[in-house]
Amino acid sequence: MSSTTSHSDNITMAGGGLYSLATIGAKHVIDAATPMVTGAIDAMDLGALDRFTVSDMGCADGGTSLEMVRTAIGKVRGRTQIPINVVYADQTGNDYNALCQTVYGHTPFTTWLGEHSDTFPFMSGTSFYNQVVADGALNLGFSATAMHWLSEKPCDISDHVQAVGAKGAEREAFVRQGAKDWETILLLRARELAPGGRLVLMNFGVDEEGRYLGNTDGINMFDRFNENWQQFLSDGVITEQEYKGMTLPQYYNSVEEFSAPFKDPSSPVSKAGLRLEHVETRVVRCPFAEDFKSHGDSAKFASEYIPTIRSWNQSIFAGALASSRPEQERAELIENYYGTYESQVRENPQGHAMDYVHCYMVIQKTA
Amino acid sequence: MSSTTSHSDNITMAGGGLYSLATIGAKHVIDAATPMVTGAIDAMDLGALDRFTVSDMGCADGGTSLEMVRTAIGKVRGRTQIPINVVYADQTGNDYNALCQTVYGHTPFTTWLGEHSDTFPFMSGTSFYNQVVADGALNLGFSATAMHWLSEKPCDISDHVQAVGAKGAEREAFVRQGAKDWETILLLRARELAPGGRLVLMNFGVDEEGRYLGNTDGINMFDRFNENWQQFLSDGVITEQEYKGMTLPQYYNSVEEFSAPFKDPSSPVSKAGLRLEHVETRVVRCPFAEDFKSHGDSAKFASEYIPTIRSWNQSIFAGALASSRPEQERAELIENYYGTYESQVRENPQGHAMDYVHCYMVIQKTA
Repeated sequence: MSSTTSHSDNITMAGGGLYSLATIGAKHVIDAATPMVTGAIDAMDLGALDRFTVSDMGCADGGTSLEMVRTAIGKVRGRTQIPINVVYADQTGNDYNALCQTVYGHTPFTTWLGEHSDTFPFMSGTSFYNQVVADGALNLGFSATAMHWLSEKPCDISDHVQAVGAKGAEREAFVRQGAKDWETILLLRARELAPGGRLVLMNFGVDEEGRYLGNTDGINMFDRFNENWQQFLSDGVITEQEYKGMTLPQYYNSVEEFSAPFKDPSSPVSKAGLRLEHVETRVVRCPFAEDFKSHGDSAKFASEYIPTIRSWNQSIFAGALASSRPEQERAELIENYYGTYESQVRENPQGHAMDYVHCYMVIQKTA
Repeated sequence: MSSTTSHSDNITMAGGGLYSLATIGAKHVIDAATPMVTGAIDAMDLGALDRFTVSDMGCADGGTSLEMVRTAIGKVRGRTQIPINVVYADQTGNDYNALCQTVYGHTPFTTWLGEHSDTFPFMSGTSFYNQVVADGALNLGFSATAMHWLSEKPCDISDHVQAVGAKGAEREAFVRQGAKDWETILLLRARELAPGGRLVLMNFGVDEEGRYLGNTDGINMFDRFNENWQQFLSDGVITEQEYKGMTLPQYYNSVEEFSAPFKDPSSPVSKAGLRLEHVETRVVRCPFAEDFKSHGDSAKFASEYIPTIRSWNQSIFAGALASSRPEQERAELIENYYGTYESQVRENPQGHAMDYVHCYMVIQKTA
């Protein structure tokens, strides 16, 4: 059943196509999964289908997955002439105008549309916390770098900005929310998937070595977010309430947590017919930190690095500020926050890198 | 086959939900057709279907058809529990963010979403000049006040702004374009429709008494557009090129022209299996002119009347102006144009009315 509310309505990715431009690394993450997508299609029996439907859940402006969608369509079309529907789904507040421009080829990115006959794009304002397509209507469900967003924030974290830095009862609340949301996401997909259909998911997570986004071998990015925000509190720039309000409604499941519902044959997820076919973690290096190794210009690095961070967390820092502050004051404060960060990177670039750490999964709906 | 280009990319309806607010009359037009929609559903055999798909082609921000979609969903759900897909389609440049807000209930309008189980909204950036859904995937195709927009302008009209005022070879070019586009629209729908499916269309047209939008029993609105634009030319405010460039890419078919493809059993439309079940014309009175009859305040009337006109033709007047003019100058010129019109209505309100003249049709795809 669809609902009229979407999760985290106040969180938005940067619009107007900026999201894809600022997140070339996110495209690398998806490109790395393309063999899993083609493998999933290879494993399917397409003979009995009268149409093939693929969804991209948490698509943002659609730029980072264009190549993957093109490959998937080509793979299906190579085997059958049935119509192919591509459903781009995100939250209600997503920038669908930017998405539409991407898909219909009005951006610098090359679209898949028009390359093969009988391919039909659709957009949905239904998030992955609700059912996007009808029961059994989905053949390939895809999602990249999106499902770490929780359906709600279980609590504010008193001394950090993300669950990776939470402790005790606060950490437990996030663990529970993460497990509950992961189950919800999977059960909804179990309804959507046709028998034999697959999910190919690449979700932010904690890998076997304890690494996660922006915390691989250098500076811990989330700790730095927190230290700078704490400094704003110490300096009296923000209030205690504003400090605590900046709690990212995210949770990075570990490989074990991602796998848990599949290991228990009596879990609702197993009973719904979902099987984990493949799971692995990957680190995709921060493209801006990689570039810096060759060009060595720390100002250039800092000016490229901060926008990639802003693209996904600015709306949350801004949302933590008291609404009683004049809008102009809030805007300046946020500029100062990222300006401080940019100075730090420019002056001491070593160790800064938003390396991506993902858990890649292929999940089958049993026939 | 979908294409990456859409017709008339430079034409846009007012965005941000303004379209629906300014066009309450367009909602009246749709409301008047609701019995045709429920009748079309009543006439269908739903027993063999595994899903029901309705499209709203040329949906703009979705506000004017919300009630109609709600009624259609209720009618289908009253007979069967199959999933219902609602596909909102318009041009690539439409305001999908506003549409999404409407459908997901984030506007003052009450949405149908969430009222019944298993109802799924989708948005498409594919216009009715391309195939929106796969062959046979459509059960009810709906379109209101949209299909008078031609796929292209066959020529500029040398002494008027709309085909209703064109003469000779210029008029002939519009007649031909209108016939060609109507056939294209129908043949694409014939592919989309499942056997037994219906189209319920309410298109601007010329009725049996020669009436059309804004030309019923008072002032001819299109002649007034033209006279004022011509005055701008005489006064040297615009150039000859700018005068001619303001040619609306629209054609109002007569009842005879709408019916022609169905009367000839050897026409491509007939051969594709489409049959005209019902055709009638209706005049829906201009709500602002009706209100004026009771309140008698000509300033209020003028201030409500001009926005309803601007909502659909401002982008075309603005687009006719030379791109060499500074943007500010173009904006001022357009303000002056509508300001002049508003003064005329304020000073001599009698006879001004954008009465809607529609041809309502129900078309069946034979089983």
